[in-house]
Amino acid sequence: MTRTSGPLDDLLIVDLSRVLAGPYATLVLGDLGARIVKVERPDGGDDSRAIGPFDAKGQSAYFASVNRGKESIALDLKAPRDRDVFEALLARADVLVENYRPGTMARLGYGWDVLHARHPRLIYAAASGFGQTGPDAPKAAYDMVVQAMGGIMSVTGHPGGPPTRVGTSVGDITAGLFTVAGMLAAVHHRTRTGEGLFVDVAMLDGQIAILENAVARYAVTGVAPGPLGARHPSITPFAAYACADAHIVIAAGNDALWSALLDALDLSALKANPRFATNASRSEAADTVATVLEARLGTAPAAHWLALLDAAGVPCGPLNDVAQALDLPQVRARNMRASTTFPDGSPLLCAGNPVKLSGYADLPEKPGARALDADRAAILAELGL
Amino acid sequence: MTRTSGPLDDLLIVDLSRVLAGPYATLVLGDLGARIVKVERPDGGDDSRAIGPFDAKGQSAYFASVNRGKESIALDLKAPRDRDVFEALLARADVLVENYRPGTMARLGYGWDVLHARHPRLIYAAASGFGQTGPDAPKAAYDMVVQAMGGIMSVTGHPGGPPTRVGTSVGDITAGLFTVAGMLAAVHHRTRTGEGLFVDVAMLDGQIAILENAVARYAVTGVAPGPLGARHPSITPFAAYACADAHIVIAAGNDALWSALLDALDLSALKANPRFATNASRSEAADTVATVLEARLGTAPAAHWLALLDAAGVPCGPLNDVAQALDLPQVRARNMRASTTFPDGSPLLCAGNPVKLSGYADLPEKPGARALDADRAAILAELGL
Repeated sequence: MTRTSGPLDDLLIVDLSRVLAGPYATLVLGDLGARIVKVERPDGGDDSRAIGPFDAKGQSAYFASVNRGKESIALDLKAPRDRDVFEALLARADVLVENYRPGTMARLGYGWDVLHARHPRLIYAAASGFGQTGPDAPKAAYDMVVQAMGGIMSVTGHPGGPPTRVGTSVGDITAGLFTVAGMLAAVHHRTRTGEGLFVDVAMLDGQIAILENAVARYAVTGVAPGPLGARHPSITPFAAYACADAHIVIAAGNDALWSALLDALDLSALKANPRFATNASRSEAADTVATVLEARLGTAPAAHWLALLDAAGVPCGPLNDVAQALDLPQVRARNMRASTTFPDGSPLLCAGNPVKLSGYADLPEKPGARALDADRAAILAELGL
Repeated sequence: MTRTSGPLDDLLIVDLSRVLAGPYATLVLGDLGARIVKVERPDGGDDSRAIGPFDAKGQSAYFASVNRGKESIALDLKAPRDRDVFEALLARADVLVENYRPGTMARLGYGWDVLHARHPRLIYAAASGFGQTGPDAPKAAYDMVVQAMGGIMSVTGHPGGPPTRVGTSVGDITAGLFTVAGMLAAVHHRTRTGEGLFVDVAMLDGQIAILENAVARYAVTGVAPGPLGARHPSITPFAAYACADAHIVIAAGNDALWSALLDALDLSALKANPRFATNASRSEAADTVATVLEARLGTAPAAHWLALLDAAGVPCGPLNDVAQALDLPQVRARNMRASTTFPDGSPLLCAGNPVKLSGYADLPEKPGARALDADRAAILAELGL
């Protein structure tokens, strides 16, 4: 049996979050079948409705792509009537998600202690810039701030070059994904115990958690690593290399692949060179490896070498722009090139769901984004209000 | 009650995965309390045991930091006796994780169909380069290949500059996090239905899924976006700006913060300038905004401006290296600066767990990494073999 929903289709998520970290988390949960009711403020709704890029009618593609498939109701959490609606929603919810600054919900009378006492089974997930504890907890953060403070920018870019931001909002997205992990672990806990949990994820913490190799290098050497341009710090060859017309990436992650690479490039004589005998020695001589490889790669265009290396089983790939990436046969075959709709129903290209599950259909047409407050009547009727 | 384990402490994960995408997924699950039994090949174990950085004894800090807290048993899945052990483990497992090339497990007689028939409740998660389906499914990929093919490198770096890799392995890490989401959704499905699911996550798919704004820009304009150095594509000011001695990041994500920024910098007169009236108009004039801000910021050092902007509530931060990031009071207060041990028991600095849950302790001392096959005797005894 192939189901068209998802394994989380028994879960109701009430989502107060705005812009990216929280909304990205509920996007992932929605793709896994959860029902997301997005509660927005009446004056304009989610800030990201006003962040570009926009279509010709002024609808935000940014908002629509991250919030596809979510119901919308506008509630003023300071107005008594709207608070009644919100509280009726909470009484039915499995998870509450918010990404306000710590303290905001408590000031509204909706702190964890209050809600946990009232709804012991409710899971409450908070994604914030710095987390609910620690000296910086009250401060606001945005992606760029945690990318800078958390160290990822210090290892991204070229040696001696200007500061370089990771080109997507990995600060928000990583926090969103850790929030998903925390929420689903809390769902499992609730199944076992009946008890809701508070999930506290900080964007800054997420940046530390994804530094991986950079922390290990610092731990062992005592020296903070710097940026390395387009190569891996401890695997060689594992970088972008220039061909006659463009760069390609070659990732020969072990000795067998190094050997296959040399054979494919007609450089087999280098196998005997002790400087290139192990990954460790190749990484010591990474610049020399690049010089040797590029001397050969520079004699023909990228397409030639990619075909040749593909045939030899050496992991490699072109440097695609977003248009090229979305046009890859593999990306199309996996329904990662998907479509949704703007609030007015017009179509919008978007990314698909990267979590493929047996027994559940993975459709490339995704439910659309909603206009602010579009689902008020239906939700009020459902709540009997 | 504060528990010292985690909400997943009833789950046994049998982990065949190597290097990073799969091991990162089980690191996250282990931090949430799951028991991870890492099954490694007898000749050297996980490839990453041979990938640096190394300590003075040749132990990999890279391996140890990603595999802390996981039991190790060495099994040759082609040897009958070891297959018996593996199959006895599977009979008790909740989840099997692997990141081989698609087809490898089927050739060993452990394809999903076989295992699902034998162990209907077993969840099977496969993280691969390109996924289990589509024309590129049989190909190997490494982080660098999917960073290049998936488009993130095309939006990272500086306009006209050389190719730039994101300085951590976001290809692997993102796939690991989506694998966690899929596994935990499958755990929920199993609780509801008793049925195990197959979870298929591709590194390339994960790269498409995190492009967010870049896909939206391409969708609306038809033009693939390029790299923007250290600024956000559609929020301004949201970038790294030069002070007298160093760059800082300022993220004034809405009009109120823009106004507060101008007041703090004694540039209030600019509020009346229509070119800077809205986020959209500021983003059109992002270079001019940078020129204006840097003219002022260049008159004093970074520390001066950070203190001033912090006091004004404008999100900002220094460009920290990894040493500085790990030394932040906030990072220490949140136990994101943690410690584990190498297989020989010597200490290793590592990142902590970014998922904080009420009712569960978040300790900065993490169980250590294990030598290859260190847990064989205990595991065999447990299995009665």
